[in-house]
Amino acid sequence: MESLKVVNLKEKLALFHDYWAPRIVGDLNQDYIKVAKFKGEFIWHSHEEDELFFVLKGNLCIHLRDQDLHLREGEFLVIPKGVEHKPYAKEEAHVLLIEPKNTLNTGNVEEKRTLKNPQRL
Amino acid sequence: MESLKVVNLKEKLALFHDYWAPRIVGDLNQDYIKVAKFKGEFIWHSHEEDELFFVLKGNLCIHLRDQDLHLREGEFLVIPKGVEHKPYAKEEAHVLLIEPKNTLNTGNVEEKRTLKNPQRL
Repeated sequence: MESLKVVNLKEKLALFHDYWAPRIVGDLNQDYIKVAKFKGEFIWHSHEEDELFFVLKGNLCIHLRDQDLHLREGEFLVIPKGVEHKPYAKEEAHVLLIEPKNTLNTGNVEEKRTLKNPQRL
Repeated sequence: MESLKVVNLKEKLALFHDYWAPRIVGDLNQDYIKVAKFKGEFIWHSHEEDELFFVLKGNLCIHLRDQDLHLREGEFLVIPKGVEHKPYAKEEAHVLLIEPKNTLNTGNVEEKRTLKNPQRL
């Protein structure tokens, strides 16, 4: 059965080096489990569903319109559907994402980093 | 907004000490994000939806009817819906679980450790 395998996140993260391009590493009901490397500023956007950010390595800032939230390794945040957010990582951060399979990384915005078909590792 | 908070998993895990009793630490669309401490043998059971096990600390064995899968810290496994499994941890293991809100910890089996209303931390 395809999905019945143990996934090591560090091994998956060693397979790519670009930023803001989540890779699919698992399927969970209607969601994808993804990993990504973040560095620098992303864009303001929102999604039609909730999105989980779980920091595996480094530090992550999520700008919201009314506050900034800071995540360290071992911390997670769920951005509720419809809430505009802009991720920012001063240094490289490794992040686990869980979100519906039809969620685009840039949400309601289409730009050069929009990934319509994320790679599966 | 209730769900817009950063959650530190180690802090949540420090709040309880019993085994096989997952606590709710977040909401993600139709799922709960839970943490649990496992030690010893659980029971054979299955669920009607996929279930994520992500090992935060220690080692976890998931017995399946045809194989045993071993997870270390930083590794995850999705047990597909309908697949019978029995978790086992020789030493205490800390685990992140993500599964639909109506999923029971003992799945299709009701026994003394069945938790109908998991505590929210």
